[in-house]
Amino acid sequence: MTNRQITVAELPKGALKPEHFTLSEAEMPTPGAGEVLLRVILMSIDAANRSWLQGATYRAAVRQGDAMPTYAICEVVESKSDRLETGDIVASEATWSDYITAPAHKVQKMPKVSPLSHLISLYGIAGKTAYHGLMSIGQPEPGQTVLVSAAAGSVGGFVGQIAKALGCRVVGIAGGPEKCAWVKQTLGFHECIDYRADGLFKAIRAACPEGVDIYFDNVGGEILETALNLMNERGRVVCCGAISQYQSTAPTGPRNLPGAVVVKRLRMEGFIVTDFVAEDAKAVRALQALTDAGHITVTEDIVEGLENAPHALIGLLNGDNKGKRMVRVSADPS
Amino acid sequence: MTNRQITVAELPKGALKPEHFTLSEAEMPTPGAGEVLLRVILMSIDAANRSWLQGATYRAAVRQGDAMPTYAICEVVESKSDRLETGDIVASEATWSDYITAPAHKVQKMPKVSPLSHLISLYGIAGKTAYHGLMSIGQPEPGQTVLVSAAAGSVGGFVGQIAKALGCRVVGIAGGPEKCAWVKQTLGFHECIDYRADGLFKAIRAACPEGVDIYFDNVGGEILETALNLMNERGRVVCCGAISQYQSTAPTGPRNLPGAVVVKRLRMEGFIVTDFVAEDAKAVRALQALTDAGHITVTEDIVEGLENAPHALIGLLNGDNKGKRMVRVSADPS
Repeated sequence: MTNRQITVAELPKGALKPEHFTLSEAEMPTPGAGEVLLRVILMSIDAANRSWLQGATYRAAVRQGDAMPTYAICEVVESKSDRLETGDIVASEATWSDYITAPAHKVQKMPKVSPLSHLISLYGIAGKTAYHGLMSIGQPEPGQTVLVSAAAGSVGGFVGQIAKALGCRVVGIAGGPEKCAWVKQTLGFHECIDYRADGLFKAIRAACPEGVDIYFDNVGGEILETALNLMNERGRVVCCGAISQYQSTAPTGPRNLPGAVVVKRLRMEGFIVTDFVAEDAKAVRALQALTDAGHITVTEDIVEGLENAPHALIGLLNGDNKGKRMVRVSADPS
Repeated sequence: MTNRQITVAELPKGALKPEHFTLSEAEMPTPGAGEVLLRVILMSIDAANRSWLQGATYRAAVRQGDAMPTYAICEVVESKSDRLETGDIVASEATWSDYITAPAHKVQKMPKVSPLSHLISLYGIAGKTAYHGLMSIGQPEPGQTVLVSAAAGSVGGFVGQIAKALGCRVVGIAGGPEKCAWVKQTLGFHECIDYRADGLFKAIRAACPEGVDIYFDNVGGEILETALNLMNERGRVVCCGAISQYQSTAPTGPRNLPGAVVVKRLRMEGFIVTDFVAEDAKAVRALQALTDAGHITVTEDIVEGLENAPHALIGLLNGDNKGKRMVRVSADPS
């Protein structure tokens, strides 16, 4: 058995490129006492991965030479702990690798849903981020208008579908006419606006005739600035990400901050999915119920092969994906 | 009896100047049915007055030729309503005038505290803004660090004193060494930093060795950007004003927004004092108790004479005041 691993060859300044990563053969890791050996099945590819290369965030900075961290669904292939058995499916902090070891108490045993990819999309970071952010921070009410950037992305797509199921008017923002059509037709958003076209302000205003009550922000930058100008009083801005800024060497701040927040008494609040871990079980039940009732279409964008992880992340940052992007490292157990 | 009134001669672009206002003799107003004639005693001078000249905010935009709006403490001199009697003291929306009329149901009868100026400082917009913003949005806990900009201003001074009484470490930001010394000596802040000196980031970091849990922002701009970089996870930014931006023709946005909000899961929330009107009685009781216990020193900066209102506001925007600025239009009733 061999193990492969992708490390960070050089920390990026500006746009992320393939040469920032190196694929190499690595030692097959050996689990110590209390640890498990894990076969990586699926790795979640997220815009946040890019931010980890910018310095310390909610986690320690990734440094040159480090294996690229990720969140993964894995199978236990060897256990030196009472907590887990060979064949168990777990979610774990991992690295871009074929195999990893982890302390058994730090991994989470998962139900064997089929396909396992739903543990990364609907029941994973994407679905839970969408649910917790929208419900706990956005606090939608029927009849309100919810604006969602990166609407064709994994989180944005779930946000819009959940909000629509709750009786909100749902308007997406995505890049290009083809993606916008997909967001409306496949995900059922009421409207979707192409941010690459001219006249973003007017387009949002036309799509949100009663203003914006909740803006779910995945991008920051100019789109955030424009959305702030269209928020209703007492609106909520769910700060989920700032993908427009991660690749920038000279980030720009919304010029209407904090002015718009003061004048319209907005609430802007950031979060990460693990802040709401105590409510995960509730979120999973709700996501399952909404999916069973036909309100949520799960869309996944699975890139095959560990070696393609750099391209998968670079493409995500360029907006290539529709639905939750992940990398398949090995097959689901049969 | 004559009446004088100050109107907006021209809407300012950039810095506010005396020539933007005109003082003129006006008709003595006559109250209609259900109205009262009010003698203006004290007018509150607030940075927000400047923002009203920038276009619609939480209130309609002020237009050229309008009498300058204000919030005032007045005496009823003639009543055509059952609600109020001659001699009553009221708080009212008003204009920069000697006399105004108002619908009796729109003014608020006030207790005859002595001096009446406390109705504008401690028990007025300043004290209530400080109390509601700090308590409802900031949610301080003993041992936390509270950073306050415009600390020598009316709201900032109360915020720091309330937070200190609640067991917080309190660090102010003000302009110039003399003001900073006053904030520490008179208001009792643990530290106060001169934002006009070099090295703001390092100075705040040194004064807040355990980071910033609550930043009470009265200024926006670069100070907000710097404060965001020093916030602790789950910190709260109370967005009370953006005085640095009101006079600017090219506002700058904090470049770390929304990045810092996402990464540190901050909450930024704007408010105006009237959002919390249902809790005003509680705020007044608390402010009185804290003052009686010696935790709050009420500092007032009273400019004499209606004709000096433009200078009072311009000076406030330049940071001339220490404590709550107001304009005395006529004497307290004896």
